[in-house]
Amino acid sequence: MPCEFRARRLVEFADTDAAGIMHFANYFRIMEAVEHAFIRSIGETVHVQVGDKMTGWPRVEVSCRYFAPFRFQDEMEVQLLVERKTDKAITYRFNFRKVDEGGSTASSPVVARGAVTALFATNHGPDGRLRAAPMPESFMRLIEAAPPDLLNADP
Amino acid sequence: MPCEFRARRLVEFADTDAAGIMHFANYFRIMEAVEHAFIRSIGETVHVQVGDKMTGWPRVEVSCRYFAPFRFQDEMEVQLLVERKTDKAITYRFNFRKVDEGGSTASSPVVARGAVTALFATNHGPDGRLRAAPMPESFMRLIEAAPPDLLNADP
Amino acid sequence: MPCEFRARRLVEFADTDAAGIMHFANYFRIMEAVEHAFIRSIGETVHVQVGDKMTGWPRVEVSCRYFAPFRFQDEMEVQLLVERKTDKAITYRFNFRKVDEGGSTASSPVVARGAVTALFATNHGPDGRLRAAPMPESFMRLIEAAPPDLLNADP
Amino acid sequence: MPCEFRARRLVEFADTDAAGIMHFANYFRIMEAVEHAFIRSIGETVHVQVGDKMTGWPRVEVSCRYFAPFRFQDEMEVQLLVERKTDKAITYRFNFRKVDEGGSTASSPVVARGAVTALFATNHGPDGRLRAAPMPESFMRLIEAAPPDLLNADP
Repeated sequence: MPCEFRARRLVEFADTDAAGIMHFANYFRIMEAVEHAFIRSIGETVHVQVGDKMTGWPRVEVSCRYFAPFRFQDEMEVQLLVERKTDKAITYRFNFRKVDEGGSTASSPVVARGAVTALFATNHGPDGRLRAAPMPESFMRLIEAAPPDLLNADP
Repeated sequence: MPCEFRARRLVEFADTDAAGIMHFANYFRIMEAVEHAFIRSIGETVHVQVGDKMTGWPRVEVSCRYFAPFRFQDEMEVQLLVERKTDKAITYRFNFRKVDEGGSTASSPVVARGAVTALFATNHGPDGRLRAAPMPESFMRLIEAAPPDLLNADP
Repeated sequence: MPCEFRARRLVEFADTDAAGIMHFANYFRIMEAVEHAFIRSIGETVHVQVGDKMTGWPRVEVSCRYFAPFRFQDEMEVQLLVERKTDKAITYRFNFRKVDEGGSTASSPVVARGAVTALFATNHGPDGRLRAAPMPESFMRLIEAAPPDLLNADP
Repeated sequence: MPCEFRARRLVEFADTDAAGIMHFANYFRIMEAVEHAFIRSIGETVHVQVGDKMTGWPRVEVSCRYFAPFRFQDEMEVQLLVERKTDKAITYRFNFRKVDEGGSTASSPVVARGAVTALFATNHGPDGRLRAAPMPESFMRLIEAAPPDLLNADP
């Protein structure tokens, strides 16, 4: 059962701000994109709407610490780790590293570290709004929490 | 019947890019926000979803010419003009000007000029997707095209 | 000395996502815009670049908890509170509330609660990159931490 | 000499809006990202700042026509064509197509068509601001305008 996933992307010009670095809010857009890529990688999909039936993963808590900046056209690798899993919510941790000239992150320090707690939700109520719901068994079986040594590998 | 509307806003830090200026794509976000403020100003609302009935204004064509940049914390005034109105679509023109130290735009050249053509649409088909529809009479009566001298006031 | 600031704004269409609510990353753009409005309100300015001398407030840690969603055209009030102040960094707390039909937030629960820790920095090093620096005395005297009862007013 | 370039990407959740489709302003962010990928593909780079010397490609005119929407997780292929080249500016045209289940766009109609005219500029003036400048010969030799039949391949 996977507990880790990695994805790479370039810092685009529209991601930057007048300080010349990637704007801090964009780390959250990227965490979400990597989370969705992880969910696709285990054969699931992030259903947003099927007819009038909708499921989703509303965020309940997010955070990020920044140790260094990313600049335009830097290549980053984002490591996703499943930190915690209950039948209602998943907490992901994200480590952002810069890919070096040789295409590696083996000696790259963590540039930023984020976390996202997402709740499983469906619109099962009468008003059609998303509400927390138990996560499907089939989904629960596909992921597991990362072991402590992996979660604590970086300071 | 109104054919013109003006709104002011500051350039926020997240609107800028590493060239130190407002990113060119953000002019379009602002044009849309001013269009929506105009629609509210005439007592209408931009319905997006009411139960399973939805109306909207999908964009069919947009453009922008840039003559000078905006920078962080510049105050801009956006002038909306109704350029063309049919029973299916409205074309808005937008003139962006910088508000000077005295709070005026009287002697401010146009920094950017944009245009947006939006189609009236409802989800009246069986699949629930938005499709072009005749604009309601009540709405048609609320706006009119700006006279040519107003449209051509700036080069 | 001010320790609190409030600003209002509408949820714009470009702020929303396909779940029909304001995208969670946009709360951070708004926190930053309110922080900058606060800094302007005390007569200071967020210098980004003056010639080749630059000062700024890079973020070192940010977080947000979401209790309910905002939707298109909701009016929000964002309450900024100075949570902590040292000579190097300021921690702001942000409470997001929905403005009710009567234009008040007196009985509005907190929709989201965020926090941002920003470091004072200048490019005083030889390579021109931003580095932490002691906050100017003049700035330090302008703000103070909010009293505990204000910080703990909401659950 | 290349006159065409293709890149693929997924519609991310943060790209969508409350109408359930990719927000129209995001096409411009994507056009720019594909333009930059094209420039890298010919061995050049989009220099933004090297010391106090800066070169860039400010946009002078952009436009987009929308024929159909993209939705969350749609895979798109963006075809860049060099439409016009002078020693001062390049006009790119962009055709957006949806990648079908088989991974092909051979029978995919154009979903949106955009254009961007970018000026070559450097900060050669005394105030350090970007100004139009003649494009370097070395760059001029690397690209050419697409032949008419390629430009007119789609309606």
